[in-house]
Amino acid sequence: MASVERIETALRRALDLAQGPGCPPQLAAAVRHAVFPGGARIRPQLCLAVARACGDDQPGLSDAAAVAIELLHCASLVHDDLPCFDDAPTRRGQPSVHSAFGERLAVLAGDGLIVVAFQVLARAGLQTPMRLGPLLTTVSSAVGMPSGIVAGQAWECESRVSIREYQREKTGSLFTAATVAGAQAAGGDPVAWKPLGDCLGEAYQVADDIRDVVADPDELGKPIGRDAALGRPSVARERGLPAALRHFDALVREAIAAVPECPGAPFLRAMVRSESERLVPVQMVARLRAVA
Amino acid sequence: MASVERIETALRRALDLAQGPGCPPQLAAAVRHAVFPGGARIRPQLCLAVARACGDDQPGLSDAAAVAIELLHCASLVHDDLPCFDDAPTRRGQPSVHSAFGERLAVLAGDGLIVVAFQVLARAGLQTPMRLGPLLTTVSSAVGMPSGIVAGQAWECESRVSIREYQREKTGSLFTAATVAGAQAAGGDPVAWKPLGDCLGEAYQVADDIRDVVADPDELGKPIGRDAALGRPSVARERGLPAALRHFDALVREAIAAVPECPGAPFLRAMVRSESERLVPVQMVARLRAVA
Repeated sequence: MASVERIETALRRALDLAQGPGCPPQLAAAVRHAVFPGGARIRPQLCLAVARACGDDQPGLSDAAAVAIELLHCASLVHDDLPCFDDAPTRRGQPSVHSAFGERLAVLAGDGLIVVAFQVLARAGLQTPMRLGPLLTTVSSAVGMPSGIVAGQAWECESRVSIREYQREKTGSLFTAATVAGAQAAGGDPVAWKPLGDCLGEAYQVADDIRDVVADPDELGKPIGRDAALGRPSVARERGLPAALRHFDALVREAIAAVPECPGAPFLRAMVRSESERLVPVQMVARLRAVA
Repeated sequence: MASVERIETALRRALDLAQGPGCPPQLAAAVRHAVFPGGARIRPQLCLAVARACGDDQPGLSDAAAVAIELLHCASLVHDDLPCFDDAPTRRGQPSVHSAFGERLAVLAGDGLIVVAFQVLARAGLQTPMRLGPLLTTVSSAVGMPSGIVAGQAWECESRVSIREYQREKTGSLFTAATVAGAQAAGGDPVAWKPLGDCLGEAYQVADDIRDVVADPDELGKPIGRDAALGRPSVARERGLPAALRHFDALVREAIAAVPECPGAPFLRAMVRSESERLVPVQMVARLRAVA
C-alpha cells in the first residue's frame, strides 16, 4: 500500500473507533472535519518512511505512531484557529472547525483529538509492550511541556520570545518526533534518526514564514500575512527573504545529508527533495529572486 | 506517607518536570494555578487506595496513575470554565484560569495538562512495560472518545441528551478509571475493582446535582445554580430533591458493598463513608428534609 493511502486508512480506522457508541454526533462530525480532507500529511509520511527504513516489523505500531502524530497536529491546528488565537475563518480551503461547528465544539474536538492520539498508541502498544514506553515518551514530550507544541504556542502569550525556541517547540518538535517515533515503532535506533527530523522541522518553519509573506492565498488554502498581523516571530520578516531562502536551501541539504545509510535512504532523500519543492516551489523562488 | 501528602508531592514533581527549561513562564504559572491548591483530590486518593489494597508493589506507577487522573480532571475543569462553556469566574475559591491568565493561556493550560498526564504515565511506564499498555488504555479511554470526559462534555452541545450517558461519560468515567487504574498499576485485577468506581462516579454526580441546587456557594467554592442556568441535565432537578437524596444513599451503600474482600477493604469502606459525608453533609440533608 502506498504510504499516503496507508495513512488515510489508518486515520479512518482510528476515527471510526473514536466515534463508536456513546459519541455525541456533533463532536464526531467536528473531529472528522478537523482530520479530513487532510493537508500534505507530511509528518505521518515521514514517520512511516523512517519505520520502513528500519524494517517496519510491527506495521500496526508504525501506523499508530503515524496516526497519533497526525491527530496531534490536527488538534493543534483546531486550537490555533480559535477566535482567541488566530481567529482563522478557513483551514485547508474549508471553514475552520470553529467556523463550521462553533467555538465549544472546536475546543472539544481539539481536546478529543489529543486524547484519541494516545488511545491509538495504547491500543497498538498492547501487542508490543517493550516499544510502547519509549514511543509514548517521544510523542507526548513533542506535544506537551516544557518544550512541545503547547509550550511553543504559549510563547505567543509572552512579551519576550526567543524565535528559535518558539519555532523549535511549535513546529520542529513534531517533525523530530515523527522520525524518532518511526524508528522506535520499528525497533530502529532513534538517535540516528533524530537529526533528519530536526532539520526538516526547521526547514518547514522557515518555508512557512516565506509562504506567509509571499504566497498566493489560493495556493496556501489559508489566509496569508497572518504572522505579521498577529505579531508573530518570523525568520522571513526578521532577516529578509533572500536570507530566509538561503537558510531554507541549507536546511534541505542538511536534511538530505542526515539520512542514515540504509536500504530506505534513497527513497527518503527523494522524499525530502520533493517535499522541499512542494513547500517552496521553483516558480515562487524565481518570483522572489526577481523582486529581491 | 499519608495518601494526601503523597499525592501533593507526586503532583508537585510532575509539574516541576513539565515546567523545566524551555517552558514559557506564563504557561507554567497557569498550569500551576489550575492544579494548586487542589480540591478534595478524591480521584487520585481513590486510585492510590485501590493500588494499596492490591499491594502497591510499584509505587512510582501508582503515583503516576493517580497524578495522570488528577491532571486530566484539572484540565477538564479549566476548559469547562472557559467563556464559551460555563464562563465561570471562580473555581475552588480562587479566580478561574481564564479569569487570572486570559482565555488563550486557559486553552493552552488545559491542553498542556492533558498531555502532561500522558508524559507522566510514559515516564513511569518505562520501568514497568507490561503494565503500561493496559493502564494507558484505561486512562485515555476515560477522557477521550467515544465515551470519556470530552464526549460527555460534548453532549452539552447536542439538542437531545441522554442524562445517563452525559453523566456517566462526563463524571463517572474518571472515577471508574481511578479504581481500575489503581488495580492495574499494582498488578491487581481491574475487573474486580470496576464496580466500586462505577458506583462512586454516579454517586458523585448525583451529589454534585444536589449541591448545585441547594448548597451555600461559600461551602462549594464555585457559583451555584449553574446547571439550571446552563440548561444542563440534572437528576436533582428532574426527579426532585428527595428522590435524588434517596438515590445518593443507595449508591453509597452499593459502593461500600462493591469493595472486594481484601486487607485494604475496611480502609476503603471508611473512605467511601467519609467522602459521602463530605459530599452531602448531614446538616445539608437535615435542611433539605425540613423543606421537602
